[in-house]
Amino acid sequence: MIVHFSKKEILQKESSYRRDLINSLAGYKSLNLIGTKNEHGVTNVSPFSQIFHIGATPPLVGILFRPHTVERHTFENILNTGFFTLNHVTPAFYKEAHQTAARYEGSEFEGTGLEEEYLGDFHAPFVKLSPLKVACRLAERITLQINGTELIIAEIQDIYVDDKGLRKDGSLDLNALETVTNTGLDEYHIGQRLARLSYPKPGKHLEELL
Amino acid sequence: MIVHFSKKEILQKESSYRRDLINSLAGYKSLNLIGTKNEHGVTNVSPFSQIFHIGATPPLVGILFRPHTVERHTFENILNTGFFTLNHVTPAFYKEAHQTAARYEGSEFEGTGLEEEYLGDFHAPFVKLSPLKVACRLAERITLQINGTELIIAEIQDIYVDDKGLRKDGSLDLNALETVTNTGLDEYHIGQRLARLSYPKPGKHLEELL
Repeated sequence: MIVHFSKKEILQKESSYRRDLINSLAGYKSLNLIGTKNEHGVTNVSPFSQIFHIGATPPLVGILFRPHTVERHTFENILNTGFFTLNHVTPAFYKEAHQTAARYEGSEFEGTGLEEEYLGDFHAPFVKLSPLKVACRLAERITLQINGTELIIAEIQDIYVDDKGLRKDGSLDLNALETVTNTGLDEYHIGQRLARLSYPKPGKHLEELL
Repeated sequence: MIVHFSKKEILQKESSYRRDLINSLAGYKSLNLIGTKNEHGVTNVSPFSQIFHIGATPPLVGILFRPHTVERHTFENILNTGFFTLNHVTPAFYKEAHQTAARYEGSEFEGTGLEEEYLGDFHAPFVKLSPLKVACRLAERITLQINGTELIIAEIQDIYVDDKGLRKDGSLDLNALETVTNTGLDEYHIGQRLARLSYPKPGKHLEELL
């Protein structure tokens, strides 16, 4: 049976119902732990799932943050230092990744037991267990006028990837990396491949590439 | 073994390698078919995966489009009419969904055999087979100065969801809906739940909610 919600009905729902529903709408999300370090050397790690591709040349990534109305360490550390890391999450530590969202006084690395790691001379900490780590430098901040949501655009500086997930053509096998994806506010999943499909052209039969 | 790419090495790679790598970085993506109809009544349907939550009150969704340098029917139809639909994809029609990206002369609904559907008096077509359909109205367009990427923000007008995927708290069970997620440019997956986790607090043990 199909359930219909009009805009009016959505707005009349309890706020927690509306938040859960609207947060689930777009589909599976790009979960990453973001690692930062403030000017006093205190590290921070926190889960984010609104991360997306902005461009390949130069390599750019975008991240959405909720409106900047309360203290948000990750966002403030990125603005103040210019540096952060993206780290894929696996089933081995997705619970610790979820737990980093708790309001710890000090570093969430200490609070949750996740180990931090420094690579090259990059300022911000990586998550040691992560099979895919990306070093990013702040390029642009845009505040969306419509509701104060913050969009950060960053340049990709370095990529560290476990070779079990790197294919010859440059694409990543996220099933092999065991990358975790999330939906809504609190639900975690792994992916199970259906297929890679050939480039689509009118009248041409699609081939399964894997 | 960990493979390292510096920014310089990324930029020196062949463009197809770089595109595949950078497109895979963020993780699993929010795949939807977007349905539109132009001023002459010609419908269009095309796959997009950069779709994200902007806010719940009012309910807002954001979509990224590549720079507007060549003819892009979906983007132009949204700008010209103000309306579009989001439609989750399932394993039953993910190949047709992929195929809608081919350069058809007329409507991709006709070209691929996907059936269109009209609900209420909404202008734009839905994808009949989709278990989750969202009617959206253009609210804001932002052109990212850094590389011309276009960000569309839209108000959610109506939601149609198969009740097998709607939980009592308002969250959606995307495993039950069989929502497909994609990675990189051409790879499709279903999700397999690990768990829903309780709200994280320092010192409190996480509970699995499902």
